[in-house]
Amino acid sequence: MQLTPPPLPAGAKCKRCSGRGQMRLPSHNTIFCSDCFLLFCRNAVAKAMKKFGIPRETDLLVAVSGGKDSLAVWDILNELGYRTRGVHVNLGIDTFSDESVRAVEEFASSRNLPWSSHSIADLLGWTIDEIRPRTRRSICSICGAIKRQMLNRLAVDLGYGTVVSGHNLDDEAGRLLGNILRNRTQYFDKQYPYLPSPHPRMPAKLKPLYRLESHELRAYCHFASIRPHSASCPYARGASSHKVKEALNLLETKMPGTKRDFLFSYLRNRKPPQTDLSELRLCEKCGAPSWLPVCSVCALKAQLDAKRGEPEPRPEG
Amino acid sequence: MQLTPPPLPAGAKCKRCSGRGQMRLPSHNTIFCSDCFLLFCRNAVAKAMKKFGIPRETDLLVAVSGGKDSLAVWDILNELGYRTRGVHVNLGIDTFSDESVRAVEEFASSRNLPWSSHSIADLLGWTIDEIRPRTRRSICSICGAIKRQMLNRLAVDLGYGTVVSGHNLDDEAGRLLGNILRNRTQYFDKQYPYLPSPHPRMPAKLKPLYRLESHELRAYCHFASIRPHSASCPYARGASSHKVKEALNLLETKMPGTKRDFLFSYLRNRKPPQTDLSELRLCEKCGAPSWLPVCSVCALKAQLDAKRGEPEPRPEG
Repeated sequence: MQLTPPPLPAGAKCKRCSGRGQMRLPSHNTIFCSDCFLLFCRNAVAKAMKKFGIPRETDLLVAVSGGKDSLAVWDILNELGYRTRGVHVNLGIDTFSDESVRAVEEFASSRNLPWSSHSIADLLGWTIDEIRPRTRRSICSICGAIKRQMLNRLAVDLGYGTVVSGHNLDDEAGRLLGNILRNRTQYFDKQYPYLPSPHPRMPAKLKPLYRLESHELRAYCHFASIRPHSASCPYARGASSHKVKEALNLLETKMPGTKRDFLFSYLRNRKPPQTDLSELRLCEKCGAPSWLPVCSVCALKAQLDAKRGEPEPRPEG
Repeated sequence: MQLTPPPLPAGAKCKRCSGRGQMRLPSHNTIFCSDCFLLFCRNAVAKAMKKFGIPRETDLLVAVSGGKDSLAVWDILNELGYRTRGVHVNLGIDTFSDESVRAVEEFASSRNLPWSSHSIADLLGWTIDEIRPRTRRSICSICGAIKRQMLNRLAVDLGYGTVVSGHNLDDEAGRLLGNILRNRTQYFDKQYPYLPSPHPRMPAKLKPLYRLESHELRAYCHFASIRPHSASCPYARGASSHKVKEALNLLETKMPGTKRDFLFSYLRNRKPPQTDLSELRLCEKCGAPSWLPVCSVCALKAQLDAKRGEPEPRPEG
């Protein structure tokens, strides 16, 4: 369930400039015109950057999928005067990945921003479409691990100390609630929108959109004339994270501000976690930081490569 | 949103005795006939009583509203061989309270169980119907405080050390999630289905139904030929606790067992809380345990009594 845009009362005015109201924010109990709304979003990101002490001179590598969130965060950081470069990971998911590159390309050229796309097939020799029928593990968790490792590597290769992602308030509140519901206390430590670099080969991770809701970012793209890739990943259907977000949106509709209060009150007394990396080594095969002699991505690659000669598994269903 | 009874596949059999399946329990991934289902519910309560170390000889005062949960817990404890007495608090809510007495009376005489009804008007001089238009505070929170104090007092007067209530898994999981969402950490300590008596005038509080879901208790009453009072309190509409339960039921429908896993994993590492009562005194007016010189119920009574001469406020709406 996506939250539908909250209806605007007839003749509503912007509460900031008294212009024509174009966007209602129930969780803030306010209404903005398009310009003041864009400013509101940029201020939310500026607030996050200030909170985490990221100076304007920091070079930022923005992980872009072509969806509304990653294009919005890239646009906002650029508007705020940060030097950014986009990096796209091509997962090799049929038309989904092509669409995704198209949206990034269109946005980057409209803003004249540097970017590059990198295929996981170059790293692994396999695409997600090829991996999925060859594994029993959840493809979402495999894909996540590959993306994380590729982004770490690209940051090191391109000389960036900080990777930005487009995770928004709904993502973060949903992740927190999901971990609480399953009592996954081991993940609580990493539930913070800024993780400083714990190792020269692991850049800092930054989520400057954690103060903005999903429906606000959809509206941001609309008002900023950004055309994001709107399809969702064909393999993520039925993911439990979607169901948790749906439950939170149900509460949000009935009690506006629930998501925000929940996440913010959790974050209020926390600080960026300090990770103990004394046990960390480097993967024997690729040199990536790893807790085991061979990292999970190289272990997966070895498993897949061993089956290379076998006939292609029949598609499911 | 109440969970609708999960549909039974045609020709379904009881997984325990192979008799005709009559009740599907998605969160346990099983199906029972009516007899095995009644046994399942009684076992769940027996497990709770064992966990909290409540011996069969304990005299139990059961707080009964006439709803499905309180009548079910009374019936189950009686079936398990506990000596029980029902106690009903008459809140004075128009036809709702009359209906509530009727259901308790019918059940108690069918089982030949001792019980009595006590009106809050006798304690306070005011009914909930009279208090509601005279206060700006939430009537649910006032009503809760009055009921708690009346039950404490009745337990002392009737010589009972333990008060049982019919709170079920949905109530407890909903309360926990509500407190987590609002970061009300001060209430976490009391989130336990057994609170030992912390003071001679405060009996132990026991919730033996915390392992059973709301829809299971509705079915229990059906199969045990109990006719509960089915209306919900006219003043509780729109309560935020209902919305949180609704969100949990949404998750439960899509991921059966979510409520149970959530509550049980929270309780797993906890023990009955030890309350520090060194600061507790007795109310100057009524002698009830209180943190302030005058307890909240006597303070409310004084406020209401001061307005006694004033004309009755006009009904809302």
